[in-house]
Amino acid sequence: MAKDKSPRRPRAETPKGFRDYFGTDVTERKAMLDAIADVYHRYGFDPLETSAVETVEALGKFLPDVDRPNEGVFGWQDEDDQWLALRYDLTAPLARVAAQFRNDLPSPYRRYAMGPVWRNEKPGPGRFRQFYQCDADTVGAPSVAADAEICAMLSDALEVVGIPRGDYLVRVNNRKVLNGVMEVAGVLDPSNPERFTEERGIVLRAIDKLDRLGDAGVRALLGAGRKDESGDFTKGAGLSAEQAEIVMGFMAAKRADGAATAARLRELVTGSAIGLEGVQELETIAEMLDRQGYASDRIEVDPSVVRGLGYYTGPVFEAELTFEIFDEKGHKRQFGSVSGGGRYDDLVRRFTGQAVPATGVSIGVDRLLAALRAKGRMGAEAPGPVIVTVMDRDRMADYMSMAADLRNAGIRAEVYLGNPKNFGNQLKYADKRHSPVAVIQGGDEAGRGTVVLKDLILGARIAEGASLEEWKARPAQVEIARSDLVAEVRKMLA
Amino acid sequence: MAKDKSPRRPRAETPKGFRDYFGTDVTERKAMLDAIADVYHRYGFDPLETSAVETVEALGKFLPDVDRPNEGVFGWQDEDDQWLALRYDLTAPLARVAAQFRNDLPSPYRRYAMGPVWRNEKPGPGRFRQFYQCDADTVGAPSVAADAEICAMLSDALEVVGIPRGDYLVRVNNRKVLNGVMEVAGVLDPSNPERFTEERGIVLRAIDKLDRLGDAGVRALLGAGRKDESGDFTKGAGLSAEQAEIVMGFMAAKRADGAATAARLRELVTGSAIGLEGVQELETIAEMLDRQGYASDRIEVDPSVVRGLGYYTGPVFEAELTFEIFDEKGHKRQFGSVSGGGRYDDLVRRFTGQAVPATGVSIGVDRLLAALRAKGRMGAEAPGPVIVTVMDRDRMADYMSMAADLRNAGIRAEVYLGNPKNFGNQLKYADKRHSPVAVIQGGDEAGRGTVVLKDLILGARIAEGASLEEWKARPAQVEIARSDLVAEVRKMLA
Repeated sequence: MAKDKSPRRPRAETPKGFRDYFGTDVTERKAMLDAIADVYHRYGFDPLETSAVETVEALGKFLPDVDRPNEGVFGWQDEDDQWLALRYDLTAPLARVAAQFRNDLPSPYRRYAMGPVWRNEKPGPGRFRQFYQCDADTVGAPSVAADAEICAMLSDALEVVGIPRGDYLVRVNNRKVLNGVMEVAGVLDPSNPERFTEERGIVLRAIDKLDRLGDAGVRALLGAGRKDESGDFTKGAGLSAEQAEIVMGFMAAKRADGAATAARLRELVTGSAIGLEGVQELETIAEMLDRQGYASDRIEVDPSVVRGLGYYTGPVFEAELTFEIFDEKGHKRQFGSVSGGGRYDDLVRRFTGQAVPATGVSIGVDRLLAALRAKGRMGAEAPGPVIVTVMDRDRMADYMSMAADLRNAGIRAEVYLGNPKNFGNQLKYADKRHSPVAVIQGGDEAGRGTVVLKDLILGARIAEGASLEEWKARPAQVEIARSDLVAEVRKMLA
Repeated sequence: MAKDKSPRRPRAETPKGFRDYFGTDVTERKAMLDAIADVYHRYGFDPLETSAVETVEALGKFLPDVDRPNEGVFGWQDEDDQWLALRYDLTAPLARVAAQFRNDLPSPYRRYAMGPVWRNEKPGPGRFRQFYQCDADTVGAPSVAADAEICAMLSDALEVVGIPRGDYLVRVNNRKVLNGVMEVAGVLDPSNPERFTEERGIVLRAIDKLDRLGDAGVRALLGAGRKDESGDFTKGAGLSAEQAEIVMGFMAAKRADGAATAARLRELVTGSAIGLEGVQELETIAEMLDRQGYASDRIEVDPSVVRGLGYYTGPVFEAELTFEIFDEKGHKRQFGSVSGGGRYDDLVRRFTGQAVPATGVSIGVDRLLAALRAKGRMGAEAPGPVIVTVMDRDRMADYMSMAADLRNAGIRAEVYLGNPKNFGNQLKYADKRHSPVAVIQGGDEAGRGTVVLKDLILGARIAEGASLEEWKARPAQVEIARSDLVAEVRKMLA
């Protein structure tokens, strides 16, 4: 028999689908979220930070089975056998809070929330099981003024983080108009709203795929169904050609300006009360935004926006970045959506039995960060600290005082704390840290009361375009009095 | 038989031991963490944000059993039956990262981390299952210069968040000195370090209880054991009176200044190589700090600091707030510890087999926030937004433009979005929001091109000290031109 193995060392690995964020990954996201929080705050929204853990029953949507909770969330049973889970978004916890604290919170309650959410889904390239969301919602405001406000705020938020006007568009639509179109097309019966639920679901998903499938693909899905390239068949909604025409007309209803688009939509939903109400709401939103100076170069009515989520009940919106980037395959394409939201009226009712109107928006933090990097607004190498090198380990206290002097003057600085024996390693370390300046003091300099400053940025620039001889002849370093350390470093950093 | 019940509504409840944070709870903590991050950054530390989820084997310390992971962490099995868990601190994930990315990270690696951690422990008053930690650690620096730097940085961090000099003290000790004392007392055998492990554990825990048990209680625990008031017996370390005397002498070794304390410690550990090395390290730390201007009014050597955690191997430190507060029972007491840390050299070795020196500190975010509130540095009512009230719901676009004008001038402002019918509710809402100013425009004012500004802060002050008649006679409100809205509101807020 084989001998018992000695205990295996634990693997040093981030769990599958999770990742760690280092340095500027953290600070750039933080700067972006801080700027957005500033905008949300100015609009009167208050921060809310709920616990990461919720009861599965409060989260809803996902139900536990005997062994473990369903796919979708990370869950476990607590000591009372209650199922708990990590939140999968920031909306479900808001609905719970709005119900739990309804007697204490102001009404309407405007809140923003930023933080990680967790999804127990198959990870893939760029798809992680933990990611940030950044939401703002208004609970308890039935008026579409609340929706208009969210759209204006979204526009402001995009500009404040560095997406210039013209590079984005907030597109607004209304589920009520879509329902009106469904009614006219004969797949919504106001006297029996449950009828045709399945057909409407297929229509909604088909519309959402217009970008990818094109006109013919969507028509196939509205009708008998569609076979894709791999031969897989997707069931269609079974609409007749006339019915499908009405739905297609809705998606093509966008006109040169909001008023013309509204007029076209009004034609399309003639005879549907809910449809006309929806058009009226869109017109009201457009007027409110226009009066605040948000013209169609920032926010526009666009009937092709439907949003995938089933729970929206009124206005829906989406922020799209309109500039082009090169995708993985080197093809030019529009950057696409970075944010979406809409009005949902049934999430709080789950808890209280009373309808509570709500509307909100969620910004895709990672996609927006990627956009800012694509625009060159972020991702620049952040300057590292000034490195005080160690020539003589018996004089650590001297070196530490130099770093302290620099820091007390507001300059980021540190002493090299590795093994100081090999000076080359110290300069390699400074390089890895993107240090702009190295401070050097050997015994000779100490005796003279001086230090040497090495300009590492200038040094690198010289090194790039110079031969070794030239580089040696022009060492980017100066010997200065120890007492001038702060002033001379400041000069070099300027 | 009873009829089937209709499905029960989910309970709107934060899970037991968790809590939600609203408004200033969130912003005050954020402001404090931002200020600390600033200090850490200036010292050359880089941010790291690890995932909230780790494999249980990487977390260590807690091992899963068949049914569910041990007490202490929240854990579950993933689809590959691997045990995952929420991190219980920020040090274990750092050790994992330092091992996983050892070829990419600079060495030494200075990192800071701020975020929630989770403990599956019995919740109690003020004890939650999710709370924030705020850590800074240096991995790969064997020199006590790294420990001295952490102490200086901790001192700076406390001052920058608003704990004035004189109201705190960073106290430093060294486990090596304690080990030297153990050696002299005969409970540490350098040739066989495993011997007396249990006795040393008891001694460590006894010392840590000096505050609570007093001299006699600790002596009992060092000797035969101790029976507490309830009659429960705690086993002692079995030291003789002479041995105990040596340990007690260690705790009483503090003298008027660091040099005198070091001299006394040197006497106590005479004959122990490890003990003398520890004293030497303390002297080096004190010299380095002194040279940077951190005198004993900020950082001092104090032999009574031992820190509970078993894994410290060298210097240990603790920040104590020295001002007095009133506890729940109305008794005056010192605020106590808000931060602690020390040198630990074995956490990375778990993964790699190679020793990696490390030292770091963790600030107790909630206790420090409580301290700042006790000092009146935080907890003030934050001013709410200017509220634009709604007198005529057909003119929502007008009201929204007013709010937009104010916001564009940098003034926090919102339109009342509840049901506008009852104007009293609008003012109650403004009150709940701590709004400083209400903007009012009825039909008459609209006709005249004016708005009314109601100074709610002045109004509240008047109302406090005035009869109803006086209050009515001095309404703190003015009618102004609509075009002067921004300027007049700004004047009122000034």
